[in-house]
Amino acid sequence: MTPKRFALTPGEPAGIGPDLCLLLAAQPQPHPLIAITSRDLLVERAAQLGLAVSLLEVDADALPDHPAPAGSLYVWDTPLGAPVRTGQLDTANAAFVLQTLIRAAQGCLDGLFAGMITAPVHKGVINDGGIAFSGHTEFLADLTATEQVVMMLATGDLRVALVTTHLPLREVADAVTAERLERVTRILHADLQRKFGLARPRILVCGLNPHAGESGHLGREEIDIIEPTLERLRAEGMDLRGPLPADTLFTPKYLQHCDAVLAMYHDQGLPVLKYKGFGAAVNVTLGLPIIRTSVDHGTALDLAGTGKIDTGSLRVALDTAYRMAETF
Amino acid sequence: MTPKRFALTPGEPAGIGPDLCLLLAAQPQPHPLIAITSRDLLVERAAQLGLAVSLLEVDADALPDHPAPAGSLYVWDTPLGAPVRTGQLDTANAAFVLQTLIRAAQGCLDGLFAGMITAPVHKGVINDGGIAFSGHTEFLADLTATEQVVMMLATGDLRVALVTTHLPLREVADAVTAERLERVTRILHADLQRKFGLARPRILVCGLNPHAGESGHLGREEIDIIEPTLERLRAEGMDLRGPLPADTLFTPKYLQHCDAVLAMYHDQGLPVLKYKGFGAAVNVTLGLPIIRTSVDHGTALDLAGTGKIDTGSLRVALDTAYRMAETF
Repeated sequence: MTPKRFALTPGEPAGIGPDLCLLLAAQPQPHPLIAITSRDLLVERAAQLGLAVSLLEVDADALPDHPAPAGSLYVWDTPLGAPVRTGQLDTANAAFVLQTLIRAAQGCLDGLFAGMITAPVHKGVINDGGIAFSGHTEFLADLTATEQVVMMLATGDLRVALVTTHLPLREVADAVTAERLERVTRILHADLQRKFGLARPRILVCGLNPHAGESGHLGREEIDIIEPTLERLRAEGMDLRGPLPADTLFTPKYLQHCDAVLAMYHDQGLPVLKYKGFGAAVNVTLGLPIIRTSVDHGTALDLAGTGKIDTGSLRVALDTAYRMAETF
Repeated sequence: MTPKRFALTPGEPAGIGPDLCLLLAAQPQPHPLIAITSRDLLVERAAQLGLAVSLLEVDADALPDHPAPAGSLYVWDTPLGAPVRTGQLDTANAAFVLQTLIRAAQGCLDGLFAGMITAPVHKGVINDGGIAFSGHTEFLADLTATEQVVMMLATGDLRVALVTTHLPLREVADAVTAERLERVTRILHADLQRKFGLARPRILVCGLNPHAGESGHLGREEIDIIEPTLERLRAEGMDLRGPLPADTLFTPKYLQHCDAVLAMYHDQGLPVLKYKGFGAAVNVTLGLPIIRTSVDHGTALDLAGTGKIDTGSLRVALDTAYRMAETF
């Protein structure tokens, strides 16, 4: 396996992101992994946690080609806007957080990094800091000039992608248009091939309505929108099954021969995924020209500096990015 | 434990209901369990399956007080409308199916039975037979003059009840009114006490919107409807938590101290439940003046007569009814 460089953004500096990076450094990584954050922040947090981690400073002009040894962490020092009080949000660091994301994403576009892995940011404090920000995904889509991205969560052998994401429930039915469904399905299919190395991915598609509409008795979107769209895409050779009832699709009979599930909306697909994989799930943004994976949890401000955290999701996010980079 | 009589309705005669009853007879039950169906049907299906089951005929005037021995099954003979061809629906037996349900439910109301357990019916063929029928649950609600029932599925230690059930997704948001939420919550709470013996049940309530609305950014129903309703009911002493995001609620941290989850709609709550328990889940109708449990699968016409079926869900439905009868 050729070593490739990866960027790791710890996200919100007052949250558990820095802690996760420091805890991670105990074990060696198979690739050079560069944390893009403030060196001072890591030094202070390591002291608070009682961890001895050797910080190896790097920058865009001097990036490493070999993994850091166990107990050490590569850092691309990025200056804070203000000193961090652990657990306390501060609008003065909003621009800092975005700067770390820009360095990582631009580095991916420029070929410095094979992919980026993100720890959680805090949307509220960035907006309060005067910067309009609706999330990592949208920010990275803008930065890479990507029109449509697709959110996919994965844990173990289960992958769940979403046609719609953060919409009020009453807006979901109208948002599931043939056009949107087609775009999302194309992105999912293409990225399962390009980024996951699946030559002919099989995708199980949920209905919108309970029982997938029960032949029109419980809604007509399956008949009017979903079935014709899937039929059109199947004619191009895609292996798309459904629309299937969400409450029977998530059972071994269906899942055992499936590469991904396409759910129509957030709470149709993610409860099962997180039930199966909480603490070890990864969020993957499909459709970007770069590889980006993320942990599936929040900033956990109350746990920052305590050491009482689990690196499970971050490790899955790293492993997923590494595997994706093998085929991308 | 005092023996109590229970009624078992095999449902659609061409489906796997009769097979399930016959397979079940191999093991003794702790209570007298009476199958309400055609004796001829059972004789024929047993021959088809190569099963030797001794059928012990009973009726409303001569009901047993002791469990049937292993290898035998009590049958309250109920005449078919036409001979059954295994796997072939026949409108001539629509009235027969309903007659078995009426005998079971009326027997519960009259105190002949402590509860009823139902195998699947086929809605379509009953309607095609000229009888308007929208499902077991609605039929039993009418028969027992119950205004509002609540559908709850359970598997292992997870119980999920629904505020709305078989509605097109675009109608869900408007159907979650304060009045409906209050009625459903009261029924759920009361039946967890009465029928499950939980003195002070803890109920986790899902939000309607993703992330439970994220403080109004993703929908206002949590703020305008759900929170005020829960607050009012909490003031009466109910232990209601939420509204919580559905994709974090179904994780061990929350579930371990919870007696039931109240989901706002079908595909928010049931995929997790069936993922966890497929083949061993039970459907319980709350709000009825009687105990009624059901298997969580369909008629499986193609499997009738083959013996390739699993009695797991039926056994869970029986065990659940038996346990409920201890406190009801």
